[in-house]
Amino acid sequence: MYPITDHQIDAMLEGMGVNDIGQATIRQICSLASNIENVSNEEVVHLEIGNPGIPASAVGVEAECAALRSGVANKYPDIAGIKPLKQAAVKFIKAFFNEEADERCIIPTVGSMQGTFTVLLLLTKLSPEKDTVLFLNPGFPAQRTQAHIVGFKESSFDIYDYRGAKLEGKLDEMLGGGNIAAIVYSNPNNPAWTNLTEEELEIIGKCADRHDVIVMEDLAYMGMDFRRDFGQPGVAPFIPTVSRYTDRYIQFMSASKIFSYAGQRISLVNFSPKVADIESESIKAFYHNPTLLNAYIFGVLYAASSGTAHSAQHALAAMLDAAAEGRLNFVDDCTAYKHRCQKAKKIFLDNGFHLVYDKDGEEPVSDGFFFTAGYGDMTSQELQRELLRYGVATISLPSTGSLQNGLRICPSMLDEDRYYDKLAQRLKLFHDAH
Amino acid sequence: MYPITDHQIDAMLEGMGVNDIGQATIRQICSLASNIENVSNEEVVHLEIGNPGIPASAVGVEAECAALRSGVANKYPDIAGIKPLKQAAVKFIKAFFNEEADERCIIPTVGSMQGTFTVLLLLTKLSPEKDTVLFLNPGFPAQRTQAHIVGFKESSFDIYDYRGAKLEGKLDEMLGGGNIAAIVYSNPNNPAWTNLTEEELEIIGKCADRHDVIVMEDLAYMGMDFRRDFGQPGVAPFIPTVSRYTDRYIQFMSASKIFSYAGQRISLVNFSPKVADIESESIKAFYHNPTLLNAYIFGVLYAASSGTAHSAQHALAAMLDAAAEGRLNFVDDCTAYKHRCQKAKKIFLDNGFHLVYDKDGEEPVSDGFFFTAGYGDMTSQELQRELLRYGVATISLPSTGSLQNGLRICPSMLDEDRYYDKLAQRLKLFHDAH
Repeated sequence: MYPITDHQIDAMLEGMGVNDIGQATIRQICSLASNIENVSNEEVVHLEIGNPGIPASAVGVEAECAALRSGVANKYPDIAGIKPLKQAAVKFIKAFFNEEADERCIIPTVGSMQGTFTVLLLLTKLSPEKDTVLFLNPGFPAQRTQAHIVGFKESSFDIYDYRGAKLEGKLDEMLGGGNIAAIVYSNPNNPAWTNLTEEELEIIGKCADRHDVIVMEDLAYMGMDFRRDFGQPGVAPFIPTVSRYTDRYIQFMSASKIFSYAGQRISLVNFSPKVADIESESIKAFYHNPTLLNAYIFGVLYAASSGTAHSAQHALAAMLDAAAEGRLNFVDDCTAYKHRCQKAKKIFLDNGFHLVYDKDGEEPVSDGFFFTAGYGDMTSQELQRELLRYGVATISLPSTGSLQNGLRICPSMLDEDRYYDKLAQRLKLFHDAH
Repeated sequence: MYPITDHQIDAMLEGMGVNDIGQATIRQICSLASNIENVSNEEVVHLEIGNPGIPASAVGVEAECAALRSGVANKYPDIAGIKPLKQAAVKFIKAFFNEEADERCIIPTVGSMQGTFTVLLLLTKLSPEKDTVLFLNPGFPAQRTQAHIVGFKESSFDIYDYRGAKLEGKLDEMLGGGNIAAIVYSNPNNPAWTNLTEEELEIIGKCADRHDVIVMEDLAYMGMDFRRDFGQPGVAPFIPTVSRYTDRYIQFMSASKIFSYAGQRISLVNFSPKVADIESESIKAFYHNPTLLNAYIFGVLYAASSGTAHSAQHALAAMLDAAAEGRLNFVDDCTAYKHRCQKAKKIFLDNGFHLVYDKDGEEPVSDGFFFTAGYGDMTSQELQRELLRYGVATISLPSTGSLQNGLRICPSMLDEDRYYDKLAQRLKLFHDAH
């Protein structure tokens, strides 16, 4: 029965050693939700996890089984990536971004988690004075953890107050010190589901050039700005990217969400040739490889896992090829998320909630994998805790580096009507009581 | 035509920027060998790479395809490992080591490369004064690179001069300073193919306890000491391991060699419960997790790749189960390496070479995946370079941390008679000329 009592939830938090619910990890919230289910004997509406909620691409599964049956499992994969994957990626990038990519600069990784972790590790040796990473918040908390583990200092600001032309002054201010090795952001944004406008991407590109900073662009949700149809290969509109505005970028292209392939941990890192060919004295001294790209492949990735599973590389090659050739419309396949988002968002708005990150320029944000919502003047922590009492699990915005009060809501797993019924009923109870 | 000229090989080395061939990486030697093939128009006998030379276990391939077809690809794997894999590992460890293991302490990694890399990364935060890793050389060069990348200092000695009872005094000397976080070795030894005797394992265990040091035991080639039959589950002899003599260990169990599964990058880390439950102030401060095991799973592995591909975990679970239940004799499957080693070793010995690491206690070393050989009083560098002129590629012992003159020879890929004919003919030419 929901709501559970204040005493019950406080006891659980104490038992888990969580002092500030707003800083709890996603994993801790999952665990708390599971405790709540045990106490209430009723399932929680899970809006906290970002799991793919649709089946894995059959093209990938079939290619992966075929590769295994053909005998790839006993051969160490080329750490730089198998040739068919690199070729397919070039085709895919041309088809959906209308950009040229260079095979040698495209490297598979064990998910984009390994991608960003190993690139950050590499960049710690870029130059002694560049000891800080700038995060455009809100963002994926794991990437800030990664920067911490590899030894970077962290710098950040909340884009909420710096959208549009205001971004340029803020970036110039943050980058002016010469201590920033890289700017990190995801677009579409996890968790805010904002999409940087072309104006903003151009500003980021210009500022990266002006201050000689590398842009790390996480494209985990590429194409899922459903306000426009990015799913037609070779046809405009093309997916927004900073690579149109600077040649100082490293892109991260995960199969986890666009092909619902999270379980196989497969992703690509795409270095711009300019970044790939950077020669740094400190990189050379540490990795005995003259260029950033070679140090990455033969130094960092060799040491980190000696490459990415052979069969998953074949799966991704087949999926990229099929998408580029119009045989697999990954954007269409993901529109389930748009519909789930619309339904969930309406229920929140009908019960007194407001959107926090609500616009890109003049346009309302897209419906997609996440949205953000607040309630009156409740703080993130109060709201997150209170909704848990009512059997609704979410992530708080402060844990994502946001300075706003509100929640990240992920309706990706809501694939049955009963979830929406429960959500509506519980939010109504909550709203009536507040 | 072999030999190629001194001038030809010197030009190639210069072109590759290699000053000291004895310190070239395996990858650079592969690349050099490929250049030599282009110049000579004849294939090189490849004894440099440690690729599995037999097909991947069919049990693994079938289980992996079944898992993919059952729909695991869209689900993030549990970073701590799927339950069937943890259970199978406990059975396997009981069956072949006659040791008890704890499911919660068994974690899959993206090959043992990720295993040792991430454990070393974790251990950098174990304690501020433990800033050094002790390598029992010779060893796998990549592990020294990993220690360098994560920021450990390196300490080492060549076991050549410290076999048997002499090992204890040397270990006490090396560990006495209190600066050693972990001892690293592989057993069977890559590259020397020595096997530590029970006496030596007991000494290592005792010294680890005496000095409070963690033993990192790489079991990549477990069971492949073919002098005894380790392939019968539940029946002595059991595979040698330090875990019989200390409870301060972390074991690395790769599927790459024992199941010929290198392409899928799947391995296990097995923490002793005592090490898993170590509480360290510096670990807690850095990872916000009280114990070593939790910091490893939720801190390091989460950041490094968010776990290991789902299907590969199912493959390994099936292979471990089949082995433990006597349906898959991985030791028998690997005896091809013994036969290849015997044939290649004879050809070297017939042509004036001698074994470098030749005995474990009073017993000649096993025939297996590698052996070590020297020629007269030639230095490692001279010998490696000269054999390359004759179309035979090897790894030099100094690159493995050995202080002896000689080569690491890996006959794992010699699966056709013609390779042995070529090897015999070329070594005869070499021997006649020297």
